[in-house]
Amino acid sequence: MDSIKDKVAVVGMGCVKFGENWGKSLEDMIVEAAYEAFEDAGVEPKDIEAAWWGSVFAGESSSIMTAPLKLGYIPATRVENQCATGSEAIRGAAYAVAAGIYDVVLAVGGEKLKDTGFTGLPQTRPVATWSYRITTQTPAAGFAMMATGYFAKYGLTFEEGKKLLGQIAVKNHHNGSLNPKAHFQREITIEQAINAPMIAYPLGLFDCCGVSDGAAAAIICRADLAKKFRPDPIYIKAATICQGAREGWLSQKYDLAHVEETYRGGLAAYKEAGIKDPRKEIDIAEVHDCFSITELTIMEDLQFSPRGRVKDDIEAGSFALEGDLPVNTDGGLKCFGHPIGATGLRMLYEVYKQLQGKADKRQIKNPRLGLTHNQGGEPGSATVSVLIAGNELG
Amino acid sequence: MDSIKDKVAVVGMGCVKFGENWGKSLEDMIVEAAYEAFEDAGVEPKDIEAAWWGSVFAGESSSIMTAPLKLGYIPATRVENQCATGSEAIRGAAYAVAAGIYDVVLAVGGEKLKDTGFTGLPQTRPVATWSYRITTQTPAAGFAMMATGYFAKYGLTFEEGKKLLGQIAVKNHHNGSLNPKAHFQREITIEQAINAPMIAYPLGLFDCCGVSDGAAAAIICRADLAKKFRPDPIYIKAATICQGAREGWLSQKYDLAHVEETYRGGLAAYKEAGIKDPRKEIDIAEVHDCFSITELTIMEDLQFSPRGRVKDDIEAGSFALEGDLPVNTDGGLKCFGHPIGATGLRMLYEVYKQLQGKADKRQIKNPRLGLTHNQGGEPGSATVSVLIAGNELG
Repeated sequence: MDSIKDKVAVVGMGCVKFGENWGKSLEDMIVEAAYEAFEDAGVEPKDIEAAWWGSVFAGESSSIMTAPLKLGYIPATRVENQCATGSEAIRGAAYAVAAGIYDVVLAVGGEKLKDTGFTGLPQTRPVATWSYRITTQTPAAGFAMMATGYFAKYGLTFEEGKKLLGQIAVKNHHNGSLNPKAHFQREITIEQAINAPMIAYPLGLFDCCGVSDGAAAAIICRADLAKKFRPDPIYIKAATICQGAREGWLSQKYDLAHVEETYRGGLAAYKEAGIKDPRKEIDIAEVHDCFSITELTIMEDLQFSPRGRVKDDIEAGSFALEGDLPVNTDGGLKCFGHPIGATGLRMLYEVYKQLQGKADKRQIKNPRLGLTHNQGGEPGSATVSVLIAGNELG
Repeated sequence: MDSIKDKVAVVGMGCVKFGENWGKSLEDMIVEAAYEAFEDAGVEPKDIEAAWWGSVFAGESSSIMTAPLKLGYIPATRVENQCATGSEAIRGAAYAVAAGIYDVVLAVGGEKLKDTGFTGLPQTRPVATWSYRITTQTPAAGFAMMATGYFAKYGLTFEEGKKLLGQIAVKNHHNGSLNPKAHFQREITIEQAINAPMIAYPLGLFDCCGVSDGAAAAIICRADLAKKFRPDPIYIKAATICQGAREGWLSQKYDLAHVEETYRGGLAAYKEAGIKDPRKEIDIAEVHDCFSITELTIMEDLQFSPRGRVKDDIEAGSFALEGDLPVNTDGGLKCFGHPIGATGLRMLYEVYKQLQGKADKRQIKNPRLGLTHNQGGEPGSATVSVLIAGNELG
């Protein structure tokens, strides 16, 4: 097994303002995100040799993306892998470039989630198989089990646990307040977080991400061509997915205090990127905070904090903008919501801007290596993508 | 732009018997197809480094495939691209191997179509965008327009056209009658084909493929490792997709007598594989005969017959088992139906067996180069995959 390391670069990115975009169609958002990326990379649609489209709800086919962009008659592929779908678009594009098939390709992800009536409640699907759908529960209920599981395992009282989760929400809302592309751009207090209406015990309103529309896009090219496009490309060091085999919650064998797919996905990505000490080497991480408890456990699964000790880092402010490892500097899913196909690309957008020193009010100091973590499904059958990118080769 | 040529090999394949598989779940078929492939390649599930899953209806996530195969914690990706979905699974797997990321991977596609209530009638989807869904019509009605369009353009009477289409159905039913894995394993006469009940004028019952359940799987590895697995691997020479940009039927600009995506997909694949004269160089083709008219026009779009002159080749029996370019030797979609995610892999299964000389009663004489053509959607927004494989390097 070889690696993608330093074979592939990101030379342009685009991202719409996420939110309740009633006035825009999915196609409008695709065009807006892609054209920001085209302009950023200094390319035109005709330069795109192939494309990858990530969407859960806007199926079937990739023509929903090629049509408004008028990318006629090029290879275009739709990928879908639960909530990690956006990262699959990046990975598909990156592998094809790493294989030497194409020089310059496009990855786009998007979702008009508000149009779907998506509420986070279980939905009737047109088709299902018995063994798959029997696991259906609301996302909030599933992740609430993680919260109570984590509290129980590490001896946290309800009050202690709620405070920890609240601190994550406060941090992410602070970051989102600095970001003109976020859906929610306002600060909250720890009291607001703790005392918010309960959604699924012990998760309250501010422990849950919202329902938003959004789209994001990346121009991906061969690493050795990247500086023809711009002086400051970002190089992909690792792009992996870890897929569960459904040994999870359904079978009651799962440790609810962590997500094995995230742990193993992290291990694989660190190996691919040659990272020995993730906490020290990684300068910025965008992780999948669909719920505050998810961000909490991810910190341990990605080895940023020792097992059971993320509390110390949260209380020390380690993951804040001014901390030693800023996490979700753009506001995360907490402030962007989770238009599913867009999320993985939106994460990469932030890492890309941060590594280029172009993150404006959110800019952290001299980052060199960034990580995105994108998680779908329930532990045990989850899809977890870990992508590592740096601002220099090697 | 480089090529996938000779970087990737197929060393194992599996395919269930297609049909109304009421007694099997989708998971049962996945396991059956994958284990035939494992055994064929002499590998075990633990040897699989990553996997690709193609399905339109059995979404979301690739865990529906990793779970029954107990492929825990490996990278696994779901791809979907209309009726060309199965070929996307092959392409995703092939690119990742060509990129040097993995040595041995699995591609699986499948659909329990009978469970979905799929009839070929327009279906209500949970989500749609206006501009996408406005194009919805029944597949039979859409391809019927191609038939009348072709008849009109080339001056065929109804009787002449029906006879041509009937000859395709008779050929494919003959091939299917020799294939124990086909859904329909019986011959039909030209009179039966011509006089069958009308489905969508001028297409009758035997001009349409059926609704079937099925699954198929491939083990794909680095070309330089292939002979460690078996003495007779198949090498992938080209794997391309051509995606339309919806300038098609809706806009009334489309030439109904051909599918531009198939023509361009063929061109791209021939270029990648270094093929100058497709008719002479290709020894066997499995093409997307969802309707008899589709196979007819594909012969011209893939440059097997001159435009407007496929009639001569059909009447000469050129595409029969004993012809100079046998087409749909396994019975095609006509006899296998079209469990969408499975079809592209089922086509490759036949080409693989033919190139290895293991196609039993259907075996053609010394084939060296085979092609699969997998088409989804409507012309103008269609996804067309063309894959070329040979039984030797170079």
